[in-house]
Amino acid sequence: MAGFSFEVTARDGRARAGRLVTPHGEIETPAFMPVGTAGAVKGVLHRDLREIGARVLLANTYHLMLRPGDAVIASLGGLHGFTGWDGPFLTDSGGYQVFSLAALRRIDDEGVRFRSHVDGSPHLLTPERSIEIQARLGADIVMAFDECPPGDAARGPIEEATRRTSLWARRCRNAHRRADQWLFGIVQGGTHLDLRERSARELMELDFPGYAVGGLSVGEPREGRDLVLDRLDPLLPAGRPRYLMGVGTPEDLLDSVARGIDLFDCVLPTRNARNGQLFTRTGRLSLRNARYRDDPRPPDPECSCPTCRTTSRAYLRHLHMSGELTAATLATVHNLFLYLDIMGKVRQSIRLCRFEEYRRETLRRLAAVDEDGPACDAP
Amino acid sequence: MAGFSFEVTARDGRARAGRLVTPHGEIETPAFMPVGTAGAVKGVLHRDLREIGARVLLANTYHLMLRPGDAVIASLGGLHGFTGWDGPFLTDSGGYQVFSLAALRRIDDEGVRFRSHVDGSPHLLTPERSIEIQARLGADIVMAFDECPPGDAARGPIEEATRRTSLWARRCRNAHRRADQWLFGIVQGGTHLDLRERSARELMELDFPGYAVGGLSVGEPREGRDLVLDRLDPLLPAGRPRYLMGVGTPEDLLDSVARGIDLFDCVLPTRNARNGQLFTRTGRLSLRNARYRDDPRPPDPECSCPTCRTTSRAYLRHLHMSGELTAATLATVHNLFLYLDIMGKVRQSIRLCRFEEYRRETLRRLAAVDEDGPACDAP
Repeated sequence: MAGFSFEVTARDGRARAGRLVTPHGEIETPAFMPVGTAGAVKGVLHRDLREIGARVLLANTYHLMLRPGDAVIASLGGLHGFTGWDGPFLTDSGGYQVFSLAALRRIDDEGVRFRSHVDGSPHLLTPERSIEIQARLGADIVMAFDECPPGDAARGPIEEATRRTSLWARRCRNAHRRADQWLFGIVQGGTHLDLRERSARELMELDFPGYAVGGLSVGEPREGRDLVLDRLDPLLPAGRPRYLMGVGTPEDLLDSVARGIDLFDCVLPTRNARNGQLFTRTGRLSLRNARYRDDPRPPDPECSCPTCRTTSRAYLRHLHMSGELTAATLATVHNLFLYLDIMGKVRQSIRLCRFEEYRRETLRRLAAVDEDGPACDAP
Repeated sequence: MAGFSFEVTARDGRARAGRLVTPHGEIETPAFMPVGTAGAVKGVLHRDLREIGARVLLANTYHLMLRPGDAVIASLGGLHGFTGWDGPFLTDSGGYQVFSLAALRRIDDEGVRFRSHVDGSPHLLTPERSIEIQARLGADIVMAFDECPPGDAARGPIEEATRRTSLWARRCRNAHRRADQWLFGIVQGGTHLDLRERSARELMELDFPGYAVGGLSVGEPREGRDLVLDRLDPLLPAGRPRYLMGVGTPEDLLDSVARGIDLFDCVLPTRNARNGQLFTRTGRLSLRNARYRDDPRPPDPECSCPTCRTTSRAYLRHLHMSGELTAATLATVHNLFLYLDIMGKVRQSIRLCRFEEYRRETLRRLAAVDEDGPACDAP
């Protein structure tokens, strides 16, 4: 399709480094996509995202269809024109948020009826409508409309959601028109390996240019996720990008790259930053901890992000405790930088065939507990 | 005093352009000082303040003594070390906030007893204690501890506050030690011209290097303020800086420069930005106004700030209505840029002896009402 390609350029074990070309720019993979729910990453301006190495943003179809509305965004040039972010965008299908945020939802094979969490207005989201909205939003990569069952669902509802996800994926494929958008399918099936395999096979019949793994990061044990990824890796087409939706911690990213994943998104670095939790190379640091009250060290002494180059723990803690807006900005810049920095090192280590070494060493340090260290306060 | 000087370099009518040298850098006057209450301008990082031309920040003694505490800030190198802002700082004395924010205050000639609005803890602020705290905070310019009566006070209480302000000014002068801090006196007296004159004369006996006009911008009519400034202009030493505290709108700044004022601070550009109100060259613009829902124009088409260069009214309105943090950042950057830009043009117009022309034209346009214009929505 016009302006798109994906190429795996290096492998190390099952980990892959690659290049995803979109009409709005190239993305080196494995890549982490900061979440810009309403068309903006909370607390960080676009140019600061660029500066710290963000290349692709995720935006949420559900939020944008409700506010300001896809028609408004379309009239202003789609997400690129509307937001001014000129790099690639990915939009989700709205499915996940309908199931987690909307009120009074009713689901059947046609789609989902729900009420907006913003103003209570009634809406119907179907595969066709999701694709239409995403076409108006104009992201480079759009997602099939899927049913994402809750993490504690029994096998029955998960099997039903998996069936419906395949049905809807076909309708999305048929409704998809824009040559300048890539449509990815989403594999469901919970932690049931046979359902995952069935879902993957049904989606692959539809020949999507990329495949996402949905329905993880919903409370399942880590081992469950790892087994799913282990099962899917040899099944999914080796030359197409794989996207693990909504995952996760730096540890999760490392472990999933090791299982062949190329793309990630997650609210953890941004949401935790706003709550005063910083990720560091040696674990997590909570700004609420009184030990940082007069600590002159940078949040993460090993970090070269704009925040760590200019800000002490004491000042950042003070801003956070005072409810200052710049606390969110400074902390989010740091957390995103750390995620993006780790992904850069992941790519390089794959190219150098040293990924396992890098992964083991990084995991060891992330778990470090040091009495005087930066990060033993929030295990 | 070491590292300080002030020079009036140009005059046009009663308006003055000058240069204020401090140990942390020069300030061209007339100057507007963004308010960084807790040691940070709300929503804007230091480097972005620099970029839009901010040269000096105001920080609030009252807030900082309560949180994180002046001892913490002193231990981290004062405000400059603590916040990382390496340009000049000015701290107020804490007086104004004690009278407007603190609970259960009791005032006598010794000082003010009050309870913190943060945690209810008891405090005593005296002239000596204010100077001590400000010495620890380490701003370049510090202010005498004054009593600022409410705007609707009768003459009796204002006269009493004026008497006490002179008494306290002397004690501040005696308590002041740091050679790298300039201590300014504050003229009180409400809109009573005889009290203002008496206050100015009593303060001038103490030979401060700069004089502030306090107790305005507390609800008095504009004419009352103008008359006070008219009376003070010929009284105050011509070669020393004059600082009008807490004022005001762009119109207020222009009218007060015309009456010989050199320095300003005000929360309006920052606070209004967070509330979705933008100042533009042709009046004010409220982001809540539905007419901007799909308006592709920059917030102020005449503005060259980073926000107006990259953001539409539609996008900024969407961010504001969605409660996105970047709405506050983008709007604050714009409003501060406009204030700082106007002050730059004020200085240039004074040097070119065209200030009155610039002032009249700018006031005319700020008041413009245009049916299709950017700014007729919030008269």
